[in-house]
Amino acid sequence: MNELASDSHPSSSAGSQKPAGSRAGSRKALAILGSTGSVGEQTLAVALAEPERFSVVALAAGRNIEKLAEQVRVFRPALVSVAEPAGAAALRDALGSVDVEIVVGAEGLDAVASHPADLVVSSLVGAVGLAPTLAAIRAGRDVALANKEVMVMAGALVLREVQKHDVALLPVDSEHSAIFQALAGQRAEDVARLILTASGGPFRTWTSEQIAEATIEQALDHPNWDMGPKITIDSATLMNKGLEVIEARWLFDTQPDCIDVVVHPQSIIHSLVEFKDSSVIAQLGLPDMRVPIVVALAHPERIALDVPRLDLAAIGRLDFEVPDRKRFPCLDLAYEALGLSEAAPAVVNAANEIAVSAFLAGQIRFTQIAETNGAVLNLHASRIGDAQTGADGGSGRLRDLDDVLEADAWSRACARDWLAASA
Amino acid sequence: MNELASDSHPSSSAGSQKPAGSRAGSRKALAILGSTGSVGEQTLAVALAEPERFSVVALAAGRNIEKLAEQVRVFRPALVSVAEPAGAAALRDALGSVDVEIVVGAEGLDAVASHPADLVVSSLVGAVGLAPTLAAIRAGRDVALANKEVMVMAGALVLREVQKHDVALLPVDSEHSAIFQALAGQRAEDVARLILTASGGPFRTWTSEQIAEATIEQALDHPNWDMGPKITIDSATLMNKGLEVIEARWLFDTQPDCIDVVVHPQSIIHSLVEFKDSSVIAQLGLPDMRVPIVVALAHPERIALDVPRLDLAAIGRLDFEVPDRKRFPCLDLAYEALGLSEAAPAVVNAANEIAVSAFLAGQIRFTQIAETNGAVLNLHASRIGDAQTGADGGSGRLRDLDDVLEADAWSRACARDWLAASA
Repeated sequence: MNELASDSHPSSSAGSQKPAGSRAGSRKALAILGSTGSVGEQTLAVALAEPERFSVVALAAGRNIEKLAEQVRVFRPALVSVAEPAGAAALRDALGSVDVEIVVGAEGLDAVASHPADLVVSSLVGAVGLAPTLAAIRAGRDVALANKEVMVMAGALVLREVQKHDVALLPVDSEHSAIFQALAGQRAEDVARLILTASGGPFRTWTSEQIAEATIEQALDHPNWDMGPKITIDSATLMNKGLEVIEARWLFDTQPDCIDVVVHPQSIIHSLVEFKDSSVIAQLGLPDMRVPIVVALAHPERIALDVPRLDLAAIGRLDFEVPDRKRFPCLDLAYEALGLSEAAPAVVNAANEIAVSAFLAGQIRFTQIAETNGAVLNLHASRIGDAQTGADGGSGRLRDLDDVLEADAWSRACARDWLAASA
Repeated sequence: MNELASDSHPSSSAGSQKPAGSRAGSRKALAILGSTGSVGEQTLAVALAEPERFSVVALAAGRNIEKLAEQVRVFRPALVSVAEPAGAAALRDALGSVDVEIVVGAEGLDAVASHPADLVVSSLVGAVGLAPTLAAIRAGRDVALANKEVMVMAGALVLREVQKHDVALLPVDSEHSAIFQALAGQRAEDVARLILTASGGPFRTWTSEQIAEATIEQALDHPNWDMGPKITIDSATLMNKGLEVIEARWLFDTQPDCIDVVVHPQSIIHSLVEFKDSSVIAQLGLPDMRVPIVVALAHPERIALDVPRLDLAAIGRLDFEVPDRKRFPCLDLAYEALGLSEAAPAVVNAANEIAVSAFLAGQIRFTQIAETNGAVLNLHASRIGDAQTGADGGSGRLRDLDDVLEADAWSRACARDWLAASA
């Protein structure tokens, strides 16, 4: 915990952004979905270092019962959720007489998400985080959002629920946190453009021919960030940046043609916002996930964090270039999806998951990832057309979570079929 | 006026910074000190393009009666001030039956400064702007500050008056406007460091030996900004950045050891603020004085401005380096002044004006500018020491404007004596 210096300024609201449950004189009560994952653990580290600021009232984890039991002993939440009944029994055994309610499965996640709290940290990985995040929003909770799938798969639906329930979504990833911070104290109608920075990935300087021959090892060699294999491949295809464009579109309720991407290999400027007077506000820093986590938890305040400081003179130079949409077609597929339908982002995301898995399994070439995504998106476009002319298939509209999951499942099946046919 | 697109969003307050006289549904009334100068004219261009946002209620100019008469005809202020009685008579002749009160001299400036208005634009050049700017603050007016001398010469005094009368100071220069914008929506106690960027001037890559032989023409050849000769020389010595450090210390009530300077030759990042969680917020843009003017006038809103947009990919790279305090000793002299006394910034500023004039007149070498400034600052330090031990001379404290003007006059005399003695 020594990275967090203690600091206990009184609460105060800042910015035109909605304050996230900050109440003067009281601690911010946290419910954490995915407490044993990386973001969950870092959130708890902040809470431990800042006991005057935060209390932990509910935790949800999956199968890591040992770690969860330790967290319950330290933070004493009122409610805790695990994936399966066997896990619940094991947790009860491990905790002995500790007074905590243990709940299970999808219902357990919903219970943690809607437990009385000032802020729900949504840090489950994958589609399993969708329902509880929606439950938190519908319960009127502000949400610190670390789960990419929520806005990628269900952005249109989530945005409507956020607006309906007037809650704040606080992004927990470096690019969207940068935009969120650049928007502080500004009016939405003064924004001209959001500019996401992209490292460009390991193939930034490669030719199309070289990229076509890229191996798994080469694709996994990311220059700036140490991440899991799926997201590292997404960085190499620029699909990751495309998915971030989709997230930005819904997180900030911004039209796709007002969202740009600039390649910035050093990843020091985390993203920028251009305003209508031509002023550009950017957030910069060394790549460190602790920063966006603490920014979201502390908003609208800030917490002192003992991490290395940005030294621009030591870094020396920052480079920028236009992303090459020909060598990296996945970026345009994301914009295309935003133009197609509310469901199309879920479609391209699901196709991409299947394609990346196939690439990581050695079944397809690197460039077939983009080909798969594009092919499935085309099939989705036809399906919407069929639906409009009275034929079968989805309308492309996301009325509720079922529509999201249907689009996801349809796309996975499509992608598998397409890969089988082209093998 | 075609650089200003029309825009009339309803007023609303934003940010934790004090809104500058913005009242929903009413126009912002402007009083302009120095209306015929560059910033004054650009301010009036904004007012002309945005008649739903701004009214012009009072103007002060010097001797450019023809231009002032035209401004009065267009904007119909209630009050106008000129430097001399002869100018007042000429203005009355030129205006015929136009209904406007005409006032004269120092009293006239004070009358314009304290005329009922929502925002006073302080854009006189030099020490003549000090008294009316203080008058505006004491009358409770928010001030858009384009006059560098106000905070350089009288910063400690002005800061006390600003706090006492609870008014907003809105900086009108690219570096301080950048910091002001980076602070929007943030709490003062969360700020760790202000980082001013410096182009480095024309001698950035020169050796000490080359700098010692620099000609007037070489010193006047600024890489990024087209400015007057005095400030261009100040950019070459880095005294300009030192004076900006002094301004930042008082504008943002920040201790000198929390103000840094980084050399950034492209002048695209206009300045940055580091927060205690290590996040850095920066404002970027192409160099264009219209932007900080419009930012100050519109605060807390923004006005659409049809100027070239920043295109980072087209610029390609941004460079940063540590300022060389040996080759450019004026930067440290500014910090030294802030540590010496409240009056020392006025002292180093006045010495610098004398030295730069002597350099531009071909009387001294380039490196003698810094030598003069340093010598006079040393004499000031001795004088404070003498005052503390009961001998004559200033205490170094700025109780009122007289103390500022005394320090300024004393320093000019000192600098002239020193230059004469070393000739």
